[in-house]
Amino acid sequence: MADIAEPVSPAQQDDEQHARMAGAIRALSMDAVQKANSGHPGMPMGMADVATVLFRRFLRFDPKTPDWPNRDRFVLSAGHGSMLLYSLLYLTGYERPTLDDIRNFRQLHSPTAGHPEFGEAPGIETTTGPLGQGLAMAVGMAIAEKKARSEFGADVIDHDIYVLAGDGCLMEGVSHEAITLAGHLKLNKLIVLWDDNSISIDGATDLATSDDVRGRFEAAGWDVMAVDGHDGEAVEAAIAEARASDRPAMVACRTTIGYGAPNKGGTAAAHGSPLGDDEIALARKAIDWPHPPFEVPDGIMELWHATGAKGAALSAEWRTRFDGLNGAVKADFSRRLTGALPDTMGAAMAAHCAKLAAEPQKVATRKASQLALEVINAHVPETIGGSADLTGSNNTRTGDMGVITPDDFAGRYLHYGVREFGMAAAMNGMALNGLYIPYGGTFLVFTDYARPAIRLSALMKQRAVYVMTHDSIGLGEDGPTHQPVEHLASLRAMPNVLVMRPADPVETAECWQIALERTDGPSILALSRQAVAQQRLVEADGNLSARGGYILAEATGGTPKAVLVATGTEVEIAAEARRTLEEAGVPTRVVSMPCWELFDVQDGAYRAHVLPAGVLKASIEAATTFGWERYVGPDGISLGVDSFGASAPAADLYDHFGLTAEALSLAVRSALNA
Amino acid sequence: MADIAEPVSPAQQDDEQHARMAGAIRALSMDAVQKANSGHPGMPMGMADVATVLFRRFLRFDPKTPDWPNRDRFVLSAGHGSMLLYSLLYLTGYERPTLDDIRNFRQLHSPTAGHPEFGEAPGIETTTGPLGQGLAMAVGMAIAEKKARSEFGADVIDHDIYVLAGDGCLMEGVSHEAITLAGHLKLNKLIVLWDDNSISIDGATDLATSDDVRGRFEAAGWDVMAVDGHDGEAVEAAIAEARASDRPAMVACRTTIGYGAPNKGGTAAAHGSPLGDDEIALARKAIDWPHPPFEVPDGIMELWHATGAKGAALSAEWRTRFDGLNGAVKADFSRRLTGALPDTMGAAMAAHCAKLAAEPQKVATRKASQLALEVINAHVPETIGGSADLTGSNNTRTGDMGVITPDDFAGRYLHYGVREFGMAAAMNGMALNGLYIPYGGTFLVFTDYARPAIRLSALMKQRAVYVMTHDSIGLGEDGPTHQPVEHLASLRAMPNVLVMRPADPVETAECWQIALERTDGPSILALSRQAVAQQRLVEADGNLSARGGYILAEATGGTPKAVLVATGTEVEIAAEARRTLEEAGVPTRVVSMPCWELFDVQDGAYRAHVLPAGVLKASIEAATTFGWERYVGPDGISLGVDSFGASAPAADLYDHFGLTAEALSLAVRSALNA
Repeated sequence: MADIAEPVSPAQQDDEQHARMAGAIRALSMDAVQKANSGHPGMPMGMADVATVLFRRFLRFDPKTPDWPNRDRFVLSAGHGSMLLYSLLYLTGYERPTLDDIRNFRQLHSPTAGHPEFGEAPGIETTTGPLGQGLAMAVGMAIAEKKARSEFGADVIDHDIYVLAGDGCLMEGVSHEAITLAGHLKLNKLIVLWDDNSISIDGATDLATSDDVRGRFEAAGWDVMAVDGHDGEAVEAAIAEARASDRPAMVACRTTIGYGAPNKGGTAAAHGSPLGDDEIALARKAIDWPHPPFEVPDGIMELWHATGAKGAALSAEWRTRFDGLNGAVKADFSRRLTGALPDTMGAAMAAHCAKLAAEPQKVATRKASQLALEVINAHVPETIGGSADLTGSNNTRTGDMGVITPDDFAGRYLHYGVREFGMAAAMNGMALNGLYIPYGGTFLVFTDYARPAIRLSALMKQRAVYVMTHDSIGLGEDGPTHQPVEHLASLRAMPNVLVMRPADPVETAECWQIALERTDGPSILALSRQAVAQQRLVEADGNLSARGGYILAEATGGTPKAVLVATGTEVEIAAEARRTLEEAGVPTRVVSMPCWELFDVQDGAYRAHVLPAGVLKASIEAATTFGWERYVGPDGISLGVDSFGASAPAADLYDHFGLTAEALSLAVRSALNA
Repeated sequence: MADIAEPVSPAQQDDEQHARMAGAIRALSMDAVQKANSGHPGMPMGMADVATVLFRRFLRFDPKTPDWPNRDRFVLSAGHGSMLLYSLLYLTGYERPTLDDIRNFRQLHSPTAGHPEFGEAPGIETTTGPLGQGLAMAVGMAIAEKKARSEFGADVIDHDIYVLAGDGCLMEGVSHEAITLAGHLKLNKLIVLWDDNSISIDGATDLATSDDVRGRFEAAGWDVMAVDGHDGEAVEAAIAEARASDRPAMVACRTTIGYGAPNKGGTAAAHGSPLGDDEIALARKAIDWPHPPFEVPDGIMELWHATGAKGAALSAEWRTRFDGLNGAVKADFSRRLTGALPDTMGAAMAAHCAKLAAEPQKVATRKASQLALEVINAHVPETIGGSADLTGSNNTRTGDMGVITPDDFAGRYLHYGVREFGMAAAMNGMALNGLYIPYGGTFLVFTDYARPAIRLSALMKQRAVYVMTHDSIGLGEDGPTHQPVEHLASLRAMPNVLVMRPADPVETAECWQIALERTDGPSILALSRQAVAQQRLVEADGNLSARGGYILAEATGGTPKAVLVATGTEVEIAAEARRTLEEAGVPTRVVSMPCWELFDVQDGAYRAHVLPAGVLKASIEAATTFGWERYVGPDGISLGVDSFGASAPAADLYDHFGLTAEALSLAVRSALNA
């Protein structure tokens, strides 16, 4: 190296190199935060040593082939320390972020967002920042890895998943769900590097917590090591030991937050604010980094580039092994990564729908979902199903799915336990892997528990399918704690989520198809506990649900005086009300609207055709009426449930809340004076 | 006892009595579930022995004075086992449920809902069913107990909090937040009885989990005991030991789910379905319960009534001690329990608002909230503030609040750690105590993490105040993971929540007053990171925000051609747009609408006055436009953010998303051709 004057021993040289390489991370991080005048220098400076060891000695990655399927994954669960990741990606030679991107940290249109955002640059394996979720998604990545290893063999898939987690991640409840699931499934490729710095935003962590973190991981079935996180050799030995474990492993890395900043280091002041020019100047001295902001000397860049370049051979070797595989296996593997479904799926679902038209079923839509899944799982080998301990209620398991167990990943069904949030986050991790389509079930009301992960599915545009049954007061006796009321509206309000509430077995199959064909975001299937009569009795030309809403039953004469709009189980009620109204001389149309989001993106002419202006419109949905003004207008009628539910048999509740064909037809007749 | 033929030794007699008392719980539970044809017999039958010991030997309660402030609390965290609680309340002599109520288990208008619902009957200390939350609320109850003990002395408050938790409760992530917080705070009055039956809905718990639960609690700083849950003496000894501990304690009670059912007992089949007539007949034999359904022999009723009657002396002794207190202390204690605020609060807040009108402030509304809190905390001794590790960002701590520490509860501020869900659930527990008004802060986007507990605040009508700062893209650089978009809409969709987004320091003070004066539900204060100019410059006659929306600036001439409706930080933008529009000859009104829910309950005349029909209405809010159709109608304009946000300085984001006075005035002029 040009800037080292005298010969030194190999060990000394290595220490020198390590210090300078870690120094580059520290300097870039504190300088970028300072320039942005916002951000978090403390974690990158504290974990620079651990990250340097990891990237130099262990992590198998190829900046020139960032999507190499068998790369190790690095998940920065403590996402606020994003400059650590951006520094590493820049230094090791990824195309982005560039140095300019780092100068533009936290600026509009720069890939260097405040927290790492999946899709903004290669090498960002997942979006993090909402604490605990990086760890929980990494569990899903490790499930996918173990599943793929079982399915394709260790020559194809055999990689590690590293997580950098902070105190905040481990205080979050989802970390419990994640680590107990990982321990149970013996996810031995999962290695958590805990930034054990004893500092959180409010101050010392002992203001708020005093648990024995190591004991906790041990109780969850993990191997645990503890090291000085600034001792490179110790870190290296611990990671090597963790890699050799037959269980998931946690390495507690004792660090100083903001390492190098002489006054703010080791305190909460280093966590989430720029250090300030004076402190940065002092830190430069402390870490022996005399270079100007955003300048990394060539010698150090070379070391980092060499670290990045090692992966080229690894990815090439993998490609050779992959190319030697059986053609059908290769094709299947590659197809999955594109997101395309097997060719046979479309025809199989069409046949399923045709059969339903010929032999109508009166079943709950959760059961209809299982009927659709029987078709899907037979044709789509990449689905991984599961439920948060409600398998028999969610109808998520089909006959041909074996159960994944700690020692056998041949199956395709996961008993997630009572871990709704952990399940959803794990599903995100599996979806990010690319080889799998995860779906998972719980009750719709418990989307509240999983909501932070559903949001990340949407933000990261991941194909996760949420099978949410017991979708209204129609679940009956379990009562208000289990009855969703606001959940449809609250999920419809979330960007990039398809909320689908099918009315019968045909729509359920159509909605499943939409969810699977969608490669840029999650879908929620809201499904009933109670049985409904099949509404779609004629084989359709194409997927009617794909338009979001459509005319299910036209008014006699073709010119409606009333349009009834309904979703899910209330479509049957609307159809019954239509008969009453038509008998009373009111030509009435029924619109089934399984998906608002899809209807809203139809062209204006179609929407105006389905929901014509100047005609009375009435909606009925066993949920809050919040938002229905969009479709029925200021003079329309909305029947729904604008309070919490109650505990009683479903039929009693529908009467109690006035969700009946009689109430609907009366309301329409009253509005029309008919 | 009439039905015991021969003399027995006292110990034998006690065993006999215990078996018969527990048998009554088992019989009532399986019979009620059978009659309802839905419900969960397994847990009540499995935990009947533990509950019998607890209620006979330890629990201090008085069925005739169910709101006795110093009663022990019994929280059925595994709420699906509601028949256990209903049986105990009936047997010990509470006014409700009656035997008819138990016959009407899970029927409309019966207090015996599928899951225990707070408010349906005395003795139901909290609503449970959403798993893990009973335990987490009990942590709040134990905080309130320790706080009240510190404040009023152990003569007034000194009671235990018992939690019955199942495997599901302990798998949920919130249990981690709850037990680590309890361990940290050394909540020694908190005792968890774990129904360790190794069964969950999907089957054996080892399908999904294999953690060492006892080790986990030990790592969290708890005392742990383990017993055979069907051995009354062992249970009694363990609870006695737990009561003597200086830490929270967990008693692992090894039980057989559905104990007594010879075929279904010990299996998932006993968990959540009626046992069936045949199995019930066999169970009657197995537990030696020859009595018909819903009949408890007099002798056993007498034993249970005697158990209930013991509390009368305890509550009377407490009343005597309480009556001997200093009059001011008594008055304060009693006032708090009514929910009324101190008399001085109203005038103090009025003075605060008057001062603001005289000396306008340009501050972030989170800072305005702190200004209001300085007034509130000085006048309202029952507030307990806190933050989920964002104290300096949420501005939740005022100068006069000491910090609550494990060994000193004199303070009034809690560092909750990074535990949003655990915080919100604990707040519910404190609110249920009745002596405290909890408020707690995090970022608005993280209401997603706390949402299941916010829902329970609303369902239970509890006064919890959520101080949710960083309420829009206006938080800037932290980016889309931290920027709420759908959260206002998703919370507005939830029944019985007031979502308030004040525009300036005056509205912030008004909204705080509304939140505190409201005794039948929670409030969410959505507050900005960024500074805004004060909009309310004239001292108002009363609390204008209490009407939900009001005319902030009238159109010149009094007849608007455009009405701009805004909330929070966008009111300033609307006011600026109004100036532009008026200059362009468009008489423009600005309506500030800090709270939709309050506006919606105003009479129609007021609403039509504020938002007149036939006039162009335009809304602006830095959030999804979902739902704004209600106010602007089908021909109105809504400016908002209908995608995820981005990472950049706030001003850049407002430009990027078109949330500017210029964009708003242009949109209005375009619509009016003006």
